[in-house]
Amino acid sequence: MSNRQLSKTPLPRRGRPPKSGVSPEETRARLVQHGIQIFTEKGFSQAGLDEILKHQKVPKGSFYHYFQNKEAFGEVVIQEYAQYFSSKLARHFSNTKLSPVERLQAFVEEACYGMQKYEFRRGCLIGNLGQELNSLPPAFRMQLEEVFQAWQAQLSQLLSEAQQLGELSLESDVDALSAFFWVGWEGAILKAKLMRSTQPMQLFINYYLKLLD
Amino acid sequence: MSNRQLSKTPLPRRGRPPKSGVSPEETRARLVQHGIQIFTEKGFSQAGLDEILKHQKVPKGSFYHYFQNKEAFGEVVIQEYAQYFSSKLARHFSNTKLSPVERLQAFVEEACYGMQKYEFRRGCLIGNLGQELNSLPPAFRMQLEEVFQAWQAQLSQLLSEAQQLGELSLESDVDALSAFFWVGWEGAILKAKLMRSTQPMQLFINYYLKLLD
Repeated sequence: MSNRQLSKTPLPRRGRPPKSGVSPEETRARLVQHGIQIFTEKGFSQAGLDEILKHQKVPKGSFYHYFQNKEAFGEVVIQEYAQYFSSKLARHFSNTKLSPVERLQAFVEEACYGMQKYEFRRGCLIGNLGQELNSLPPAFRMQLEEVFQAWQAQLSQLLSEAQQLGELSLESDVDALSAFFWVGWEGAILKAKLMRSTQPMQLFINYYLKLLD
Repeated sequence: MSNRQLSKTPLPRRGRPPKSGVSPEETRARLVQHGIQIFTEKGFSQAGLDEILKHQKVPKGSFYHYFQNKEAFGEVVIQEYAQYFSSKLARHFSNTKLSPVERLQAFVEEACYGMQKYEFRRGCLIGNLGQELNSLPPAFRMQLEEVFQAWQAQLSQLLSEAQQLGELSLESDVDALSAFFWVGWEGAILKAKLMRSTQPMQLFINYYLKLLD
């Protein structure tokens, strides 16, 4: 955890300071954004730092100004993606114009749109990294698990709201249903990438909604 | 397809013939078995041929006696794993001592045992490769999809049998239910590896069985 907290603040460490007119914060943010894209598409092990730096026109020396090493960079990338995704969930799940179950459907619809937009090349960074776990720095495992737990808590809360509004039986175990959603959802994303179709995501949500009935 | 069919037969191609007392068929089979293990644990891109050959004490020249290149080797490995897994499914699904739904449960129990046995390092080769799709030879995508389709057909047939025996409603869509199983199952394997626990697999099958009620 301390590593991650440290690497959040762009403290000078070693290497040259950035020379361009772009602010250090902006350069760092661009590196992280590009890291999200590349790690999602290629995985962590396969993606080279050089490729990311070249694309962003950042010299290697400057990279070490922001991050201790690739692992520390990876931790920040995971953290940033987790927060981005969590905000997306919060936006959907707090949309009181829709019923709680409709809010979940709206999230799924947006995800289907996103998969198509990026031609089924991306999917979920967290799921992708989970799959290459054996090749990752050991600290990532705990971090990925915490990310899933956070998303799971957000969905549990939505399902509790569904219970309060009479949309879901009070007998349903909202925590188990939420855990089940994320189990199946990652599988659905995987199959969608393989089939280059949102059909597995639609299939998953259709049966999931049956369980909420 | 032709590549795969060709590479099934250990035709001499280039490089030295094997020198040890082990038969060529045995050497080839050992390479494929070790390929299944290494590609499942590390993925295709991360696993080096050198590592596999060193472990099996096979000189690189001999490797090319059996396989044209790493891609051709990968295709045979996928094919072999798919057949092994399909036989496992067939063994469970044809066990008439159990009801069709109980046979599915028996398969899941064995899978949980296997995950624990290999300390959550392996999971499913096909799911793992599906996740690194962007880095794989393009021909693998179709091959992986065909594998899933074959497993899906096996489960559809089991669910049809459940219908005939009155264990599953005749109104259920067995093909959709089967597709849904494999979507969720790959997600469950992913989460099990992440959590180092069979709990996601148990959670998945529990809710899946509710859908069959």
